[in-house]
Amino acid sequence: MALVVQKFGGSSVADAERVFNVAKIITDCYSLGNDVIVVLSAQGKTTDGLISKAHEINPNPSRREMDVLLSTGEQISVALMAMAIERLGFPVVSLTGWQADIRTDSHYSDARIKKIGLERLRSELDRKNIVIVTGFQGVNKYEDITTLGRGGSDTTAVALAAALKADLCQIYTDVDGVYTADPRIVPKARKLDQITYGEMLELSSMGAKVLHNRSVEIAKVYNIKLEVLSSFTNTPGTLVKEAARNMEKTLVSGVAKDDNISRFALTHLKNEPGIAYKIFSLLAKHNITIDIIIQSIGRDDTKDISFTIPKLLRDQAAAILEEAKDAIGYETMDIDDTVSKISVVGAGMANNPGVAAQTFQALYEADININMISTSEIKISVLIDKKDADKALNAIHDKFFA
Amino acid sequence: MALVVQKFGGSSVADAERVFNVAKIITDCYSLGNDVIVVLSAQGKTTDGLISKAHEINPNPSRREMDVLLSTGEQISVALMAMAIERLGFPVVSLTGWQADIRTDSHYSDARIKKIGLERLRSELDRKNIVIVTGFQGVNKYEDITTLGRGGSDTTAVALAAALKADLCQIYTDVDGVYTADPRIVPKARKLDQITYGEMLELSSMGAKVLHNRSVEIAKVYNIKLEVLSSFTNTPGTLVKEAARNMEKTLVSGVAKDDNISRFALTHLKNEPGIAYKIFSLLAKHNITIDIIIQSIGRDDTKDISFTIPKLLRDQAAAILEEAKDAIGYETMDIDDTVSKISVVGAGMANNPGVAAQTFQALYEADININMISTSEIKISVLIDKKDADKALNAIHDKFFA
Repeated sequence: MALVVQKFGGSSVADAERVFNVAKIITDCYSLGNDVIVVLSAQGKTTDGLISKAHEINPNPSRREMDVLLSTGEQISVALMAMAIERLGFPVVSLTGWQADIRTDSHYSDARIKKIGLERLRSELDRKNIVIVTGFQGVNKYEDITTLGRGGSDTTAVALAAALKADLCQIYTDVDGVYTADPRIVPKARKLDQITYGEMLELSSMGAKVLHNRSVEIAKVYNIKLEVLSSFTNTPGTLVKEAARNMEKTLVSGVAKDDNISRFALTHLKNEPGIAYKIFSLLAKHNITIDIIIQSIGRDDTKDISFTIPKLLRDQAAAILEEAKDAIGYETMDIDDTVSKISVVGAGMANNPGVAAQTFQALYEADININMISTSEIKISVLIDKKDADKALNAIHDKFFA
Repeated sequence: MALVVQKFGGSSVADAERVFNVAKIITDCYSLGNDVIVVLSAQGKTTDGLISKAHEINPNPSRREMDVLLSTGEQISVALMAMAIERLGFPVVSLTGWQADIRTDSHYSDARIKKIGLERLRSELDRKNIVIVTGFQGVNKYEDITTLGRGGSDTTAVALAAALKADLCQIYTDVDGVYTADPRIVPKARKLDQITYGEMLELSSMGAKVLHNRSVEIAKVYNIKLEVLSSFTNTPGTLVKEAARNMEKTLVSGVAKDDNISRFALTHLKNEPGIAYKIFSLLAKHNITIDIIIQSIGRDDTKDISFTIPKLLRDQAAAILEEAKDAIGYETMDIDDTVSKISVVGAGMANNPGVAAQTFQALYEADININMISTSEIKISVLIDKKDADKALNAIHDKFFA
């Protein structure tokens, strides 16, 4: 007998038929003798509907009230799922974030889980109930409702798995696993049986929207065995776990692209210490996440700094940097929205410098120009023109997986 | 400076325009220097929509999960209202039932408020926040969400007013006060400036759907000054309070009808003690509320018992009584759904036997036959054929208010 945490996304519970499909998956797992905790997102387009209701009334509502509003979406899901499972004749109880005692900090709309009180969860499991928990939400020290931000239900699931020392955390999505590239763009992409946390992390921060970034971080820290699989097909998914000794040694596990970025360039900065600190601490203060950073020395003893950020934050970042123009001391700010980031990820590449060379070769052979390059232990990212992105993805994928 | 509790029903917050209309009423009250607590119902048809979602999945869901589901309706209302008030530039905070610490018993879907913890509410008022509270819901000792049943938002408002010793509790509805009869049926009906708790209680149990019954009971016990008024028109409403010395002494305050009843008759019961107890304790055990009861002695030393119940409970009551036929020992059970109950209510009638006589005279003059009669200190009810109900209402109203 094991403790299994299962998470289902919004499309998996979009209507009554799908709710019963998921209820069947849950009760099958329970019938095998497992303790089962289920985490649900809001149904289909519920969250978007609530957001537009809010914006009709106030284009700029407080984040606290937005969280009160949005948290109803998952509450509806868990109640309906509990009713479906009741109908199948199994013991079940639904719990909201505050009932499951999921304690977060007070960053409304983007809160982090700090602690999960286990008393209620344990007592429901002891009573042999299937426990259905709202994803994406918790409660802060003021007893106010918080949400974890989009995709936060993955984080809820993995955090629950960690707190309860679950044997397995299954993330059900509308894809049946993690692929070497997005199959909609790269027809030859193939499903991976296994992947390491590190690779998954790089892939999910790279725009492969299979798993929420923070959920993989927590899984890695607490060593939670994750499985990504589909609630629509009955096939094995992809296991995410620490590299086992006998794990097949793959050089590259996947290729991903991210179109939703903007490239900023600040030119003619003074060539003295503290400039980068000024820029990036200012942006960090406003919660703007930076991705690739390139710094180059100009010929006239000034320097240029380029970096990419999520396109969503583009206007906010531009306003902040514009206001701080004198304090930072740059000459021009150039913003480019027509770029894509292509990333090659693989735990094996750390000891194999050939991967970078092969990546560049693939791009060269496809006649694609590289604007920026950034590398980590297990990742190579290049910034290229957006119009070349799909071609680049296929070219690199062919190089490693053909 | 006073503490005012304002309650708005579902139709008052049905869309963005109405939400702002209500927000204006709230902030006007706050701007006069009052502390303001607001209680909201779910928007328009939200509750019905959630119920049909549930029934699509499970025609007979547990009441616990139904409460988890339905309570989201008010949560959406309070978040949206808080956003509207934020936009008008006033300090505001929304609170759910559990956040406002509204403690109830564990009768899911029909819970009663046991206690309201005031810590959070007081601290929000101290911070000069307008406080928007979800109506209709609370939390029980298991930290489970409960709902108070339909119309329970009135009860929430009055209970909050009682707990906080509010100076006034305003119930905003889609009518602008309490009338001497339903103006849609009795064109000459006029609005009352004042009415006593007792009269209001009789009227609201009589099918005048202005105020939820239990809310009036609480207001009476805690001596809360209630005002019933419209959120659509800017006119004074009706004050509900203890009869003041200088209160205009009206014999009759209103005439109401109730069509949603069924009349049961059990015949040839043994004429011995305990028969009525058997019948009504059995129905009470199944939570079936009885209204008028008439017991008559037949010629053959048996007796007949007739009573009315809400039409909603007709089939359930019939099944229970059918099963207990031998235990009770009746010969036939007759059920009549074509009856209406007409009630005349007035605190003044206790000392004036002429009211009953005038009521019967009005019906006689209108050629309407009376099936059953029941009286209390401040009320006379008659059961008549449903087809005569509107004519009877007008005839009696003319007699007292012409």
